[in-house]
Amino acid sequence: MRDVVVAGVGQTEFGADERGIRHIGAEAAHAAVVDAGVDVDDIEAAFVGNVGGPADPQRGLVGQVCLREMGVTGVSVTNMENACSSSSCAFRQGYRAVASGLEDVVLVLGVEKMTGVSTEEATESLGSSADAVREGQRGMAFTGAYAMSANAYREKYGVENLRAALTQVSIKNHRNALANPYAHFHREITAEDVEESAMIAHPLRLYDMSPISDGAAAAVIAAEDALAEPPETRVTVEASVHRTGNYDDPAADSADASGVERTAATAYEAAGIGPDDVDLFEVHDGATFGELNHMEALGICEPGTAPDVVLSGETEVDGAHPVNPSGGLKGRGHPIGATGVAQLNEIVWQLRGEAGDRQVEGATVGLADNGGGSLNGVGANYTVHVLQADR
Amino acid sequence: MRDVVVAGVGQTEFGADERGIRHIGAEAAHAAVVDAGVDVDDIEAAFVGNVGGPADPQRGLVGQVCLREMGVTGVSVTNMENACSSSSCAFRQGYRAVASGLEDVVLVLGVEKMTGVSTEEATESLGSSADAVREGQRGMAFTGAYAMSANAYREKYGVENLRAALTQVSIKNHRNALANPYAHFHREITAEDVEESAMIAHPLRLYDMSPISDGAAAAVIAAEDALAEPPETRVTVEASVHRTGNYDDPAADSADASGVERTAATAYEAAGIGPDDVDLFEVHDGATFGELNHMEALGICEPGTAPDVVLSGETEVDGAHPVNPSGGLKGRGHPIGATGVAQLNEIVWQLRGEAGDRQVEGATVGLADNGGGSLNGVGANYTVHVLQADR
Repeated sequence: MRDVVVAGVGQTEFGADERGIRHIGAEAAHAAVVDAGVDVDDIEAAFVGNVGGPADPQRGLVGQVCLREMGVTGVSVTNMENACSSSSCAFRQGYRAVASGLEDVVLVLGVEKMTGVSTEEATESLGSSADAVREGQRGMAFTGAYAMSANAYREKYGVENLRAALTQVSIKNHRNALANPYAHFHREITAEDVEESAMIAHPLRLYDMSPISDGAAAAVIAAEDALAEPPETRVTVEASVHRTGNYDDPAADSADASGVERTAATAYEAAGIGPDDVDLFEVHDGATFGELNHMEALGICEPGTAPDVVLSGETEVDGAHPVNPSGGLKGRGHPIGATGVAQLNEIVWQLRGEAGDRQVEGATVGLADNGGGSLNGVGANYTVHVLQADR
Repeated sequence: MRDVVVAGVGQTEFGADERGIRHIGAEAAHAAVVDAGVDVDDIEAAFVGNVGGPADPQRGLVGQVCLREMGVTGVSVTNMENACSSSSCAFRQGYRAVASGLEDVVLVLGVEKMTGVSTEEATESLGSSADAVREGQRGMAFTGAYAMSANAYREKYGVENLRAALTQVSIKNHRNALANPYAHFHREITAEDVEESAMIAHPLRLYDMSPISDGAAAAVIAAEDALAEPPETRVTVEASVHRTGNYDDPAADSADASGVERTAATAYEAAGIGPDDVDLFEVHDGATFGELNHMEALGICEPGTAPDVVLSGETEVDGAHPVNPSGGLKGRGHPIGATGVAQLNEIVWQLRGEAGDRQVEGATVGLADNGGGSLNGVGANYTVHVLQADR
């Protein structure tokens, strides 16, 4: 296995985007190619994450139509779907292709078009990121699954400050997103905004939920010697792990995040580091509770202590363990097929020192934690990536 | 790159299958695991081809729900969509994972549920295997694209016997399917049946078209030394190539199959063989004309001669160049996400000498040619695999 560098990244501004999926995807892919300083003809293969849904008529061949818009034909293009982890899984397949020597320069793209349809259509479509029959058709949505998880967690650890911590996650991620030009939201919010927003599924309110967004994120990953010019900051992939969840484990309660824990353990071992060596974390906050739950599974803090840690300011951009400096799914937005690569792109910008007012000072190691759907109320996919900069 | 063997194969009986996609997929996956003589716990990763559509509510996480039905959780499962070549592309990613040493034993699954919805819904859904906006929304369907292709071919080569050859492809593939227990159709047909069937898009009639089918096909592929017991017949993957089409080439006419030609050329070179070394071909006959067109691109015969070659009997099971002994997409059926692996499974059965009354005597080399959708009326994806048996 040889070293793999992230040579370039590109992203669209997340939010409601009136363009078709092909143009959204092509914009991010183009930007990544330009950022990498490679030519479109250098791309040997593309791995594309997309979930698909009713918002765009193009529900298949998404990578092919996006790449056609930039004149890339002939090479292998493979579309991948693993719910909200679709593009981190695409990134992983691209990484594996380069690391094992099968290809030298590959494009990874995550893209999703979600707005423009009714909430009912969007919700029904998201049902296929869980068990569409045994859960979706019985009325279970992700909002409810996150709520069950939050309630089980509160019971399990007897925490008293869960609501305050959830609110703080939302405030923090919105504040971080203010400094992210690609974010869906650019608006500071208050505790009142969160706690007076509509109740969705107790204890979670509207402002606990990541939004429905359109957007695309792309990266060019490469073997170093295949690049005419090495990137100014050398960002390497030190770990790339994917596991499906332990959704058939009879011991797993609704707050179970042992699948994240196992995935992260493998990634830490591969990278030869522990959680204290990580300068910033991008964490899957599909709802605010997800950030708390995954923080513990990633080893940022002990089980049952995430609310205290968040309220202490430790996860702020200038804290000891910055979490979601990008704004996370909550603030940056969550175009589901694009989120995985968007997390990785944020880490690249941070490790290059290009993150502007959300910059984590001196960051050299970043970790991305992406979840992909749920089955039986337990995460269906977990990916953990560790990126590192030589600087 | 190390040798990769196909350790086991499994398939459902194609046709209308009332079960949900999870049970269809699990049946084929189970059968492949049993055939390989491995344990479900030996599976290190799964690559799953599925296009998705309105016929089953589970449009995402298809691999995860299928594998959950057989108790497989925790490992990496990645769903892939590349239109009708989804599962040959999944097979290819599994092959690459094993060949490069990333995994030792992987499961590849292709599965599709298509029946149970209206023709209109099925057709609209298939529009995403082409350009859903620029073609589908303007009324172009695959039937029309194949017809344009057939007409362009007839003009280009001035062939007089095209209709007779199309009819012969349908008759042959139905006859071959009679001996295939997994085939959708088990009915011998006559020239009259074909030529009096409904006109769909001139010159193509209903009996020129592959059907809407449900079904699944699975394979276990492995590094040889990872298997407790080697398979009785050692079937290795000698070439695995995927290219998207040259759909932006201004010189490509509607009958263009130069993308197949390029893909096949790479595969022949990788396998160190030529078309005359191949004992049987599984060819993408989405419509009967596809078989003729691809035969030439695969080098079975010269451009413009496929009609003569088919009418001469050369592509029958006992001919010099057997094509689609399984019955092809026309006779075996075409559950789009399953077709790629189904072609490969047929080759495995043939190379093992297990193909019953459709056995190609002494077959040791087989080639599978799978197309995946179209863009601008030209194929969107082409895959070519070469398998070989030591016996």
